[in-house]
Amino acid sequence: MPDIDAYLDAHRDQFEADLCELLRIPSVSADSRHRGDIRRAAEWLVAKFRGLGLACDLVETAGHPIVLADSPKIDGAPTVLVYGHYDVQPPDPLGEWISPPFEPTVRDGNLYARGATDDKGQMLTHVLSVEAWMTTEGKLPVNVTLLIEGEEEVGSENLDKFIEANRARLACDVVVISDTSQFAEGVPAITYGLRGIAYYELRLRGPKQDLHSGTFGGAVKNPAIALAEMFAGLIDENGRVQVPGFYDDVAALSDAERKQFAALPFDEAAFRNQVGVAQTFGEAGFSTLERRWVRPTFDVHGLTSGYQGEGAKTVLPAKASGKFSFRLVPNQDPKKIAAALKTKLAELCPPGIEMELVEFHGAPGVVVPLDSPFMAAAARAIEHGFGRAPVYMREGGSIPVVSTFRNLLGVDTLLLGWGRDDDNTHSPNEKFNLADFHRGIRSSARLWRELATRK
Amino acid sequence: MPDIDAYLDAHRDQFEADLCELLRIPSVSADSRHRGDIRRAAEWLVAKFRGLGLACDLVETAGHPIVLADSPKIDGAPTVLVYGHYDVQPPDPLGEWISPPFEPTVRDGNLYARGATDDKGQMLTHVLSVEAWMTTEGKLPVNVTLLIEGEEEVGSENLDKFIEANRARLACDVVVISDTSQFAEGVPAITYGLRGIAYYELRLRGPKQDLHSGTFGGAVKNPAIALAEMFAGLIDENGRVQVPGFYDDVAALSDAERKQFAALPFDEAAFRNQVGVAQTFGEAGFSTLERRWVRPTFDVHGLTSGYQGEGAKTVLPAKASGKFSFRLVPNQDPKKIAAALKTKLAELCPPGIEMELVEFHGAPGVVVPLDSPFMAAAARAIEHGFGRAPVYMREGGSIPVVSTFRNLLGVDTLLLGWGRDDDNTHSPNEKFNLADFHRGIRSSARLWRELATRK
Repeated sequence: MPDIDAYLDAHRDQFEADLCELLRIPSVSADSRHRGDIRRAAEWLVAKFRGLGLACDLVETAGHPIVLADSPKIDGAPTVLVYGHYDVQPPDPLGEWISPPFEPTVRDGNLYARGATDDKGQMLTHVLSVEAWMTTEGKLPVNVTLLIEGEEEVGSENLDKFIEANRARLACDVVVISDTSQFAEGVPAITYGLRGIAYYELRLRGPKQDLHSGTFGGAVKNPAIALAEMFAGLIDENGRVQVPGFYDDVAALSDAERKQFAALPFDEAAFRNQVGVAQTFGEAGFSTLERRWVRPTFDVHGLTSGYQGEGAKTVLPAKASGKFSFRLVPNQDPKKIAAALKTKLAELCPPGIEMELVEFHGAPGVVVPLDSPFMAAAARAIEHGFGRAPVYMREGGSIPVVSTFRNLLGVDTLLLGWGRDDDNTHSPNEKFNLADFHRGIRSSARLWRELATRK
Repeated sequence: MPDIDAYLDAHRDQFEADLCELLRIPSVSADSRHRGDIRRAAEWLVAKFRGLGLACDLVETAGHPIVLADSPKIDGAPTVLVYGHYDVQPPDPLGEWISPPFEPTVRDGNLYARGATDDKGQMLTHVLSVEAWMTTEGKLPVNVTLLIEGEEEVGSENLDKFIEANRARLACDVVVISDTSQFAEGVPAITYGLRGIAYYELRLRGPKQDLHSGTFGGAVKNPAIALAEMFAGLIDENGRVQVPGFYDDVAALSDAERKQFAALPFDEAAFRNQVGVAQTFGEAGFSTLERRWVRPTFDVHGLTSGYQGEGAKTVLPAKASGKFSFRLVPNQDPKKIAAALKTKLAELCPPGIEMELVEFHGAPGVVVPLDSPFMAAAARAIEHGFGRAPVYMREGGSIPVVSTFRNLLGVDTLLLGWGRDDDNTHSPNEKFNLADFHRGIRSSARLWRELATRK
């Protein structure tokens, strides 16, 4: 593909400028104050696609809009659905960013900004590879539909409804998503398994208002203590979740997969150093990669209660709340887990406390087959873009739409991750390596040809 | 005292105006942004005392200033040290106030404002009774020293140093403090026992920054979960503190005191309704009053970790912290408790978590004798002011300075509380009943005479 690759080489600066432009829009889907920014990001994409000559719709939903674009129809060629998202996580805690989250800044070859890798940067690699083909050839060798949503970070509720209502419109042979990471620096990867998620907020109420802990303490159950007791009751000291039946359906780790993981160039000491802990922690009998990829977990994401200011305040708080989730692995049923959780929490809730459980988005874990022609085409494209064949890995994060595509469209997903494990996804100082950005575009441009010749 | 009481009756509006003026100054000692307001409140008092013809000093400390005033010297008369504080608790949560915390507002005979009862309103009753005597008689029948500090709500650290360095200057026969409550509406009380306090903040650190809970969850110990586990480990489901030796020195409740408490007109259902809980909770084998007055406790005052905003964020937080305290009863030694706590927390702290324990103020519990002539004089003064003889009660809150006065000056304290149990001390919508305010002034004015004739 001399013409295509030459175009990519010649437009590196322009591609980076495009990415920075999109990153400057603070499209935080979880925060209603950013509703206008979300729309601006969607409209930026619409303008981009129309500028390339693609048919494009801004699809309104009950929440944030979906952007849907199609490359010119090629009869007889396979159809690829590229999924990505233009919304980003909240940037909190703001004080820990070295450069402001919505002012993209390059340091040491990395572009720092909220959304740099998750998912604006990775998603754009496919948009820009389409640009290269359209500009150079006037068409693509396959049919590409780009489906870019604005609610990935808040559960994709309206996307699911849209897919369900538009199955024929979205019919395809395979889905491509770039929203994951390489295995390590210089080790590109295809991810064939993801964990699912079940996310909740537990809200507790004790007395009708904050009380003086001297006058009332000892006679009124303290909701902050109740929250501590209830969360502590959901997991044991060995990291085992205490919801009855939680592990019943967990797919056992095969010896083959265990060997495959063990063969990956994973450096435990480097991992501890990256994360900044003196020792790792997790379920007994499993390696760090196994704990992150194939075992279900319980994590608390936030705690809020009482006085959080400077100094001492002797208050017995009226309320306490905590956000938490379980990461789920294939075969665990989110609905079954939710039911068992509610029973367990009702048991754990002490007298004098009223509880409310708010359910956020959920998704099951997923694995896709390794032996498909699509997988082989993707491996060749990555070898072209990165100069090295990919390894096959799993990932602890959740991309719920992968199981939606399996269930509603009957297709598997190629998870082609251009990011890195230390990209600070969902954390302060999120970044995307610019060399990886361009390798991703090059891989994507090659992927269209590999998929065309392979079908 | 016809002249004095007539003065009090004639100046009710002026007294209320004085109180409102002081309440409008947001003298929050825990919040460094209010440093200037603290000083304004101190200067307000200095101007007041000097206006009455009292010798008055604004004493600088390493923190907020102390106001010290003396009535004209009466040879041979006893010396009474009146202690109070002009600082107030933070007003959070602000959104729950019906009227703004620093805009005093009267509703149904109650004056609503932060500090209304704790302690500006109660403290002012003694200032205004001194005003009545000075204006009417030109002097008081006893020697009164007024010691008003600005750091009661943050541990009185500098007051303790000041008392230690000025024992001769502060020598007295008895201390009077109004910073407690009546037993119930229409049931005035003298409080003869207080709980102590040991206040801490536990700060936990896990990974060096917030992580994606999907990519890392299961392999890195979550500090929010560690905090929950550690707090849950400090107390059992029956409300018993799990710090080894915590109960070793607790003074047992005598049959006589148990009977005395049981004879008080306490309405359990009204208490539940006041607090807003379906059921009370506490140590087995003790009544609600016993749990609040004579049993030590553990309470969590605040929890902070991770994402606390709107919606869902899948973060594995780097940090978690919680403020907590033990209320202590007579004979428990705060130093011994602190040492045992540190050992216990070190045991509870899980691998992969670094902990820091910040120690705030501490004070032992205290009881004062019921059979002194001062106590009898106070009872007569209260009967004059409230039209009913007081009952004798204990209180679950802490006034650490009471044990300081016992230890450094060798004197006991009369705790003459004009407030009510439902005054929302330390909570939103703090109030002080205006009829009680005037009854307090009348009792205080009578107290000086009763103490003079009694010595």
